[in-house]
Amino acid sequence: MLYIGIDVGGTTAKAGVVDESGNILCKSSCPTGIERGHEAVIHDMAQLALSVLGGSGHALNEICSVGIGIPGIQDPRTGRVPFCTNLGWHDVPLVELMQKEIDKPVYVTNDATAAGLAESIAGVSSGVRSSVFVTLGTGVGGGVVLDGKVFVGPHGVATEIGHMITVAGGELCTCGNRGCWERYASASALIREGRRLAMSQPNGALASAVDGDLAKIEARTVIDLAKQGDPHCSEIFDNYIHHLCVGLVNLINLYDPEIIVLGGGVSHAGAFLLDKVNALLPKLVFYKAMPYARVELAKLGNDAGIIGAAMLGRQED
Amino acid sequence: MLYIGIDVGGTTAKAGVVDESGNILCKSSCPTGIERGHEAVIHDMAQLALSVLGGSGHALNEICSVGIGIPGIQDPRTGRVPFCTNLGWHDVPLVELMQKEIDKPVYVTNDATAAGLAESIAGVSSGVRSSVFVTLGTGVGGGVVLDGKVFVGPHGVATEIGHMITVAGGELCTCGNRGCWERYASASALIREGRRLAMSQPNGALASAVDGDLAKIEARTVIDLAKQGDPHCSEIFDNYIHHLCVGLVNLINLYDPEIIVLGGGVSHAGAFLLDKVNALLPKLVFYKAMPYARVELAKLGNDAGIIGAAMLGRQED
Repeated sequence: MLYIGIDVGGTTAKAGVVDESGNILCKSSCPTGIERGHEAVIHDMAQLALSVLGGSGHALNEICSVGIGIPGIQDPRTGRVPFCTNLGWHDVPLVELMQKEIDKPVYVTNDATAAGLAESIAGVSSGVRSSVFVTLGTGVGGGVVLDGKVFVGPHGVATEIGHMITVAGGELCTCGNRGCWERYASASALIREGRRLAMSQPNGALASAVDGDLAKIEARTVIDLAKQGDPHCSEIFDNYIHHLCVGLVNLINLYDPEIIVLGGGVSHAGAFLLDKVNALLPKLVFYKAMPYARVELAKLGNDAGIIGAAMLGRQED
Repeated sequence: MLYIGIDVGGTTAKAGVVDESGNILCKSSCPTGIERGHEAVIHDMAQLALSVLGGSGHALNEICSVGIGIPGIQDPRTGRVPFCTNLGWHDVPLVELMQKEIDKPVYVTNDATAAGLAESIAGVSSGVRSSVFVTLGTGVGGGVVLDGKVFVGPHGVATEIGHMITVAGGELCTCGNRGCWERYASASALIREGRRLAMSQPNGALASAVDGDLAKIEARTVIDLAKQGDPHCSEIFDNYIHHLCVGLVNLINLYDPEIIVLGGGVSHAGAFLLDKVNALLPKLVFYKAMPYARVELAKLGNDAGIIGAAMLGRQED
């Protein structure tokens, strides 16, 4: 059987037809156009899905289910999306509206959860029963697979690993708390610290790299200079690694996964990131003589959202 | 069928015969005597278990299994106890040695995990599928039940919620890291802050309450003065509540349990503790409009260890 996966973000909606092994047979994307309201967006998502199904050369009766990854959560009591800031949604009956367009079982989950499921089926954590996927992007998102199944908790809110507080009283977070992990382990954290550096050293290497325009500082700018050995950017990146590992060791202490997968923008730093994590993390682990999660980089890239959303249906088979 | 539960600590070993509903039919205890080595201790544990079985009026063929709670963990790969500081054990084949004494299936888990399981079967979280039990004692321990089953992770190390880092760079912990939750949320934290207060205010209410002998300051001393309205002890306790809630909200963000149960010495502060937690926690929760874990006080007290250890066997039925 085949599965449709839809990955809808604030800018782009993607859909694909996916086989049981997590291979994409056909995929496409379109602008989300959130300003048109959720009904138009959901209609377009369905049309996009049907169009990739056509492109794949398969028919609707070969499709098991439709899975949707959103930058938010579904309330498991109601099946509705209570709110989704990036889509501008409030209390949207996503399952019901999608089923009116495509009469198949519809599953909804968080986009990071979908990506984690995808990696655990067709990516770097393939064949592993327990994994935690961590997206190091604008924020920090999480996808947890325990004993082969997506874990979102009975209220569906167990994915907010980025809002785990690791520095009580620390940097103010968008959520209103202080010291959330994502304030220290996201790409935004590198940008913030980079801007602070460039402000304090207007003639330094980082400020020069962006011609003095602090708005141009990206996580990559800081990482590239750290790679080149700039001492100030190296300090920022090493501090970033420390805070990243603090959160990772918390994930180990609480979930004890077999593998932690790092995805999102910062993970593109590759071995430069991973080597530093693997040098520090063992020092922070509580049971140093016991086996614990290995850390790997995500493998599926941008397709993970489509694949994971599709595979939500395979879970329920 | 019936179950034997053994709860072995650094000072006392307890055993009980427990029915399927978690009721103790007969129980007894003896000094652990760890200085005699693990073989003598395990022999005594078995003798104690057989003696309570006799006392219960039941026979060995009515017993399903023997469960043991230890202040440490079992390596799920080997079934051995890799190390247990409070018992002075190193690589002890506990299951094998116990089965030589009592020829029944033997299950081993962490004492906090056992207490959490007990509460979820016969205590305050009875009938709840997902719960986190938090012991606020010398350290902070955890017992996690997910979907009705004890959760310890594939490597067995997922119970170290007390070593979740909530204040990166903070107080030095016994584990070598800085800022572990238990440095802020244990009874020891209240004692440490109490001593600091009494040192800085040698004529203050707290120092006076212990006649200037700082070694006599207990968590209870600080809590009692906070209850009486002493402003300095109130400040310590309110700060304690803040750090406690930081960890609790992390548990909600990661496990999303239906209930969090507070046990251990500090939980004896009762409503004074719970009311303050319930006043602060909602402000820290990420999804404020979604349901999340309620917080309750443990109900079973000292018997939880015996009951939970016994019920390990019921899980496997």
